[in-house]
Amino acid sequence: MKININADIGESYGKFKMGNDEELMRLIGSANIACGMHAGDPTIMVQTVEFAKRENVSIGAHPGFNDVWGFGRRQIRMNPLDLEYSVTYQIGALQALAASRGARVTHVKPHGALNNMAHDDIDIAMAVGRGIKAADPELVFVANVGSQMTRAGEQLGLRVANESYVDRRYDDNGKMLSRELENSVIRSPEEASEQVVRILEEGALFSVNGKRIPAEVHTFCIHGDEPTAVPVMKAVRAKFVERGIEVVTIPQMLGIDA
Amino acid sequence: MKININADIGESYGKFKMGNDEELMRLIGSANIACGMHAGDPTIMVQTVEFAKRENVSIGAHPGFNDVWGFGRRQIRMNPLDLEYSVTYQIGALQALAASRGARVTHVKPHGALNNMAHDDIDIAMAVGRGIKAADPELVFVANVGSQMTRAGEQLGLRVANESYVDRRYDDNGKMLSRELENSVIRSPEEASEQVVRILEEGALFSVNGKRIPAEVHTFCIHGDEPTAVPVMKAVRAKFVERGIEVVTIPQMLGIDA
Amino acid sequence: MKININADIGESYGKFKMGNDEELMRLIGSANIACGMHAGDPTIMVQTVEFAKRENVSIGAHPGFNDVWGFGRRQIRMNPLDLEYSVTYQIGALQALAASRGARVTHVKPHGALNNMAHDDIDIAMAVGRGIKAADPELVFVANVGSQMTRAGEQLGLRVANESYVDRRYDDNGKMLSRELENSVIRSPEEASEQVVRILEEGALFSVNGKRIPAEVHTFCIHGDEPTAVPVMKAVRAKFVERGIEVVTIPQMLGIDA
Amino acid sequence: MKININADIGESYGKFKMGNDEELMRLIGSANIACGMHAGDPTIMVQTVEFAKRENVSIGAHPGFNDVWGFGRRQIRMNPLDLEYSVTYQIGALQALAASRGARVTHVKPHGALNNMAHDDIDIAMAVGRGIKAADPELVFVANVGSQMTRAGEQLGLRVANESYVDRRYDDNGKMLSRELENSVIRSPEEASEQVVRILEEGALFSVNGKRIPAEVHTFCIHGDEPTAVPVMKAVRAKFVERGIEVVTIPQMLGIDA
Repeated sequence: MKININADIGESYGKFKMGNDEELMRLIGSANIACGMHAGDPTIMVQTVEFAKRENVSIGAHPGFNDVWGFGRRQIRMNPLDLEYSVTYQIGALQALAASRGARVTHVKPHGALNNMAHDDIDIAMAVGRGIKAADPELVFVANVGSQMTRAGEQLGLRVANESYVDRRYDDNGKMLSRELENSVIRSPEEASEQVVRILEEGALFSVNGKRIPAEVHTFCIHGDEPTAVPVMKAVRAKFVERGIEVVTIPQMLGIDA
Repeated sequence: MKININADIGESYGKFKMGNDEELMRLIGSANIACGMHAGDPTIMVQTVEFAKRENVSIGAHPGFNDVWGFGRRQIRMNPLDLEYSVTYQIGALQALAASRGARVTHVKPHGALNNMAHDDIDIAMAVGRGIKAADPELVFVANVGSQMTRAGEQLGLRVANESYVDRRYDDNGKMLSRELENSVIRSPEEASEQVVRILEEGALFSVNGKRIPAEVHTFCIHGDEPTAVPVMKAVRAKFVERGIEVVTIPQMLGIDA
Repeated sequence: MKININADIGESYGKFKMGNDEELMRLIGSANIACGMHAGDPTIMVQTVEFAKRENVSIGAHPGFNDVWGFGRRQIRMNPLDLEYSVTYQIGALQALAASRGARVTHVKPHGALNNMAHDDIDIAMAVGRGIKAADPELVFVANVGSQMTRAGEQLGLRVANESYVDRRYDDNGKMLSRELENSVIRSPEEASEQVVRILEEGALFSVNGKRIPAEVHTFCIHGDEPTAVPVMKAVRAKFVERGIEVVTIPQMLGIDA
Repeated sequence: MKININADIGESYGKFKMGNDEELMRLIGSANIACGMHAGDPTIMVQTVEFAKRENVSIGAHPGFNDVWGFGRRQIRMNPLDLEYSVTYQIGALQALAASRGARVTHVKPHGALNNMAHDDIDIAMAVGRGIKAADPELVFVANVGSQMTRAGEQLGLRVANESYVDRRYDDNGKMLSRELENSVIRSPEEASEQVVRILEEGALFSVNGKRIPAEVHTFCIHGDEPTAVPVMKAVRAKFVERGIEVVTIPQMLGIDA
């Protein structure tokens, strides 16, 4: 059995340091690399590509809104064409920097508020999907399981990697509980690792009320900005070893030659 | 006989309009397209690529400093690696957007203050050159004739298109007169068109003092922001017709299959 | 009888020119000056202050979202404190530049998407209002008549100038018709000038269906970016002369010593 | 005996944390608060003002170049008027936010590359000085002792606080050794505290070659980004206690009623 783990990486900006890339990179299979609009200047992008390559972590673009101050976490109502081209722009920038290091961008995952908006709004999800397809139709669209993004990806003929979370709980519709709710985040390494393995082995999510929601998950996201991310992720990896589950890259997970 | 004419195009930004692309695009052979850092948002980049393609104008990236307020005309002392990666970033963004329209980026010309700094400083010229080569070693480096950029391009094994100006005068070293000098800009359509043809036919620049400076010029730049640009350029095109000089793209000028 | 006319002014940015300040400034009583976040760099702010002073036009701050690319016309979901402080920041910047020219900021009007959001959302309107009050409790809040902004202004004890439009039509609730509707904008100078005078003389707006909505209007806004703005405004001024209506500044309109 | 200690504070930006404000604020007499262009968004500015006020630390504006990516540490060649107005803009923004918290901006110190350029170039120093004076002629200009900034400040009739460094060594002209030189930074708490007290008690700097350069120093800067800043500063404070030297605010140091 195999699975992918992804995390947002390379979100520093100039002198401003963000996240714990050093530890996280060694625990994941794929890195979502910021592309300069919400974080991640060109130099950090190159360094992150090199680091990912050294660790055999597959490389994804992590396009976000053009808002360093808001770190891409503020919703911005762009028109769909501006958004589509902005996604292609960011992917293209990373593709060129990756190619210069002998690496290749193999997936795309929207960042922050853009991800949240595309989760629920098919027009935004389609704009993101078209932006991905324009950059390279072989790119994998990493999309929350059950979201409008998976629908958009399928409609556009893109490969979609269904994504769930290492450290979040779900409601009866299979949606993540809002961060506003107290019990939305799983901070116990034990509980997180049990949930991950259960989702994998049962092919289903389980809501806080115990409801079973069938779901084929290809990749789990770990949020680097939770202080519990590293211990949680280490527990998950230990559990994987125990159960013979291998952490692979996104192309490996989807059976693609990279 | 054939020659390339290039101009900076696509320098609007969101709601802010800049330049006279509509007229200029029909008078040139190659467009230097702004890449989002000093001007030119993703939507404008796409629209400009489409327009260039329709007019059979070859497409170049026009990377500049990250400074919309200063329109890339203020010198910024970046460290060479930041600069190199920033050049690749901007080219990559345009490459992806161009590819989405079935077009290809075939040359690169630095913008504004970056061009001025790279003209005289070999370290900056080399950083730009490495940034170009990393994006695609087949790209043509459009470089002021006799500048450090031509040296850098040659050192890196890049194809270099030697550039002169339609509307500027030269000193005895073959350097453009500074814009501060009153007689630096040629605003007479007649004089401009005569100078261009003379440079081409004699294979040399001529200084304001009449000194002959041998120079093989592949491309002439016309500054779209001079109010005389369009009449000057029309006179040049008329003179070209008279003399049987054809305006071609940069790849055609250098005998490259595009 | 007297009335104020306001317009957004000083929305150029560096080399990027925007609007027709030269003509508009001579037709209005108050200028809403962009404060650097969506347009209007410090130099343009100073030049616009000087111009307004010369023309006896009262000076207002026109704070917007931090989005030059989107020209402040894209909704950005800021948290209310960030928004409040951002409003004070922008007003403070203009206050200092105005003071350096012996001028004073006497009103504030939010720009673009911020104005639209504050129109309908009391939390956003209150954040803007608190940001204004923090900069100077004597500032006049220019607020669309009947909007959440007028409510917020009153709740905070701010002076409010009720604003209507020279060139827009209304629905039965007294709300401007959306720009999406074909008949939302009045482009006929005659019709615009008649509507303005009617609103003033009757103390009421009239909807497209003829419904009378009582409204005390202190200021009319003219949109500089409509190509018909200058002819429309000239017709309005001519009608004012005919009817003995004087165009005054915002402080004069509200009977405030400036 | 009394002295002022200043440090750059409030240089975080949105989600990006920078510096060790929590510890530094308790060790200084005056804070140089970033004003939004190189760091320090409006919310961080307010929080920093509140923190400074609680700690009885006097408040200064710390204007920098408009370059978050470069953290204001890259030289940007602005024209002098753009620079002057940009300085007033940044000070004005902080003045309004400070006033909203019942606090007052009492000094200004340029940041990073702007400080370095103004150190040596009288035109830049004068532009900064005029920008300060325009915002408030009572503001104290914190200027490196012996720099063009002290000259500009005097020429403009501004109060100048001569600044030296807690942790830097000097050449025979009284200039700080460049950071490129290995021995430029003093990292030993003992040596730093001895140097500070010696400068104060002797009224002179001492070069690495032992040369005595007479200098009246009003304020010492401590660089928060050196990892040794806090231990160095604690040693300095301990030495001050031992010698009966009191750390005061900038207004107290210059005998100004704040």
